[in-house]
Parts: sequence; structure tokens; C-alpha cells
Amino acid sequence: MTSTAAPSRRRGRPPKSDGDYRATRELLCRAGVAALTQKGFSATGIDEILKSTGVPKGSFYNFFSSKEAFGAELIRLYAHYFARKLDRFFLDESLTPLKRLEAFCEDAELGMARYEFRRGCLVGNLGQEMEALPEAFRGALTAVLEDWQVRTARCLEAARQAGEISPAIDCAKWATFFWIGWEGAVLRAKLERRSEPLRLFAQLFVLSLKS
Amino acid sequence: MTSTAAPSRRRGRPPKSDGDYRATRELLCRAGVAALTQKGFSATGIDEILKSTGVPKGSFYNFFSSKEAFGAELIRLYAHYFARKLDRFFLDESLTPLKRLEAFCEDAELGMARYEFRRGCLVGNLGQEMEALPEAFRGALTAVLEDWQVRTARCLEAARQAGEISPAIDCAKWATFFWIGWEGAVLRAKLERRSEPLRLFAQLFVLSLKS
Repeated sequence: MTSTAAPSRRRGRPPKSDGDYRATRELLCRAGVAALTQKGFSATGIDEILKSTGVPKGSFYNFFSSKEAFGAELIRLYAHYFARKLDRFFLDESLTPLKRLEAFCEDAELGMARYEFRRGCLVGNLGQEMEALPEAFRGALTAVLEDWQVRTARCLEAARQAGEISPAIDCAKWATFFWIGWEGAVLRAKLERRSEPLRLFAQLFVLSLKS
Repeated sequence: MTSTAAPSRRRGRPPKSDGDYRATRELLCRAGVAALTQKGFSATGIDEILKSTGVPKGSFYNFFSSKEAFGAELIRLYAHYFARKLDRFFLDESLTPLKRLEAFCEDAELGMARYEFRRGCLVGNLGQEMEALPEAFRGALTAVLEDWQVRTARCLEAARQAGEISPAIDCAKWATFFWIGWEGAVLRAKLERRSEPLRLFAQLFVLSLKS
């Protein structure tokens, strides 16, 4: 295959085939998500992404028009990946609704421990450093959190209907409370490199729902 | 006064007097805290600090041996400033203990609104980007949060003794929960540029204490 198969704006060495192109793009995105969950956007250089993936320097712009475009795509991919994860837990009918939320929290502990608490939440990291980021990221990050809140509110609603939590609970409000605090818990677990902050937040959140 | 009054490691133009030296150092620290509460450590350049303060380029090392030493000093100053702020609220005997906590939260709302929600918490910002920071910051940031928790736990203990909150509340545990979640609320208020996340977190936290 010749370089004519690639969009004309591509520069540098052309990928060998469309399959190669997709595979390389996926490789870059995977490395990008890892870096952003770890260090955030400002501290991540395109050069290190290319180096860690073995993608030749100079060919980045075959895939993304800018670091900003790359970041926007990583937010989109992470949101998609995470929404599927939430569905996997929150729609798991083998558990009661409240147990689903607890299972999600326990899985997050294991997930953070797997990377020695070096990786947190991409959305939390970028949200924190928003003042140094392209303004377009603000709405994207907010929308992702709102989507997670909607999914969580549905799970709480099911818990309320099942009589697992107080009937007085405003599920949308408490789902927002959960995501406000959970991002803080992920931050703290990363800072202290241990799962206790996640566990404590989950424990007292669930306790509060019941009373 | 000649340059011999300055420590020998100082480079660049010497300050005119010890008073000038202290004033310039304070100016740099003030600008540093503002930048770190806004953008964090990685995205803040020494050059912009010098530019915003009008301190001549090249004289930074008269004051700090490195960007890391500057950051460590800013953490120390911010911790000191914030501990005094907490004392001002939590030891205010004109309010009931629970009202003191609520007053602190309301003041934080006003404080963030004053800077159009561009500035958050220095400790939260640096905690979030810890993977990109000098390792020595980790213990310093954790210690600051633990200090705030101790002060908050004392306030909760007073509220418990005054019968304002449930007698079953483990004050140390709930103070930790508060700071885990509050850092998340500051993050979210900064992201959304509005006070609602702070207000919602404070409201449901206080509600949880009572039940």
C-alpha cells in the first residue's frame, strides 16, 4: 500500500496498511490513557508517548492534529471504557443494587493496587489541572462526570426501591455527592499509595445512605 | 549593604537590604501559591513567577536553590496559612461547633468565587499530580491533610459533646471522610466554575453526621 491511502494531512512515514494504522493509533491511545491517569495532561509529553510505544518521532501528526486533539480523544475513549465498566457493575443482577455499588468500589481498590496506586482517574486528573488545559476540555470532563452520576443514580434508585437505603434519599443528589467525593478518594489513594481512602469513603457513603 | 551579606550560594544581582530580600522572597511566595492553587506545580514555570512579580530573571536562585525547594516552601507556607484559617473557624466560640464547620465551608465558597473558581487547594492540586512531582512532596502533602483532619476531628468532637451530631459518630474517621471528599468538591467547583459542588458536599456531609 502506498502513502496515497492515508489522508493527505498525514506527515512522516505512512503506516503500512489501514490495519497497521488502527493498531498504531490504538497503541498511542493506550499509552496516552496510562500517562494521563498517572500524571495528567500538562506533565505528559508527546515524545514520551512515542518513545514508550516505539512509534517513530514525527509520525504523531499522522494520527492526531495536535496534543489537544489527542487529549480530547483520550477523554472520549476513557469515558466510553468507564461507562461500560459502570454498566457491568450497576446492571449486574446477581447482586443487590447496593452490593453493586460496593463491588464497583472494591474493584477500584484492586484496580489502583494493580498499578501500585500510581494511576488514578483520567477525569479527576484533568479536572484538577483544568486551568492549564484547553478550555474545550471543561465541558467534556463535566459531561463525563454527569454521565457517571446518571448511571449511579439509577443504581441508587434501584437500591431505594429494594429497601436497601433510606426512602428519603434523593438519588440524583447522592449520586453527585458520590462522584464529588469519590474523585477526592482516588486523589488521596494515589497520594498515599494505599487503598484506605477509597475504602473509608465507600464505607461511610454507604452508611450515610442507610440512615 | 554589599553582596557579602547574602549566603555565598546566591547568584545574580544581590538584594539591596535584608528588608528588600524578605519582601522579594514574600512576593515570590505569594505569586507561587497563587499559581500552584490555580494550575499546580508541573504547569507553573519559574519564568512566569518572575515575570508576574517583576523580579529579575536569574535572581530566583538568590532565594531558592531549585524549583523543588520553592515548591516545598510553598507547601509549608500554605499549610501554615490554612491551619490558622481552620483555627479561626473551628475555635470560634461565638458559633456552635457544627456551625463553625458550616461557616468554614461557606467561607470556602466565597473564597473560590472571589477568584472566579480558578484557584483551588494547593494540597489537592499537588496531591493529584504527585506522580510527576519530587517524591519528598508526598509525605509533606499527606502530613498537611492529616493536620487538617486532626483540627476538624476536634471540632466534630465538640459538636458531638454539644449533642449536635449523632453520638455514634467516630470523629477522627468522619474528619478524614470530610477531607477526602472536600478535596473532591474543590476540584469539581474549579472544573465547573461554580459553588454548587462545595455546597452539596457540605450539605450532605452535615446531614450524614446528624443521622
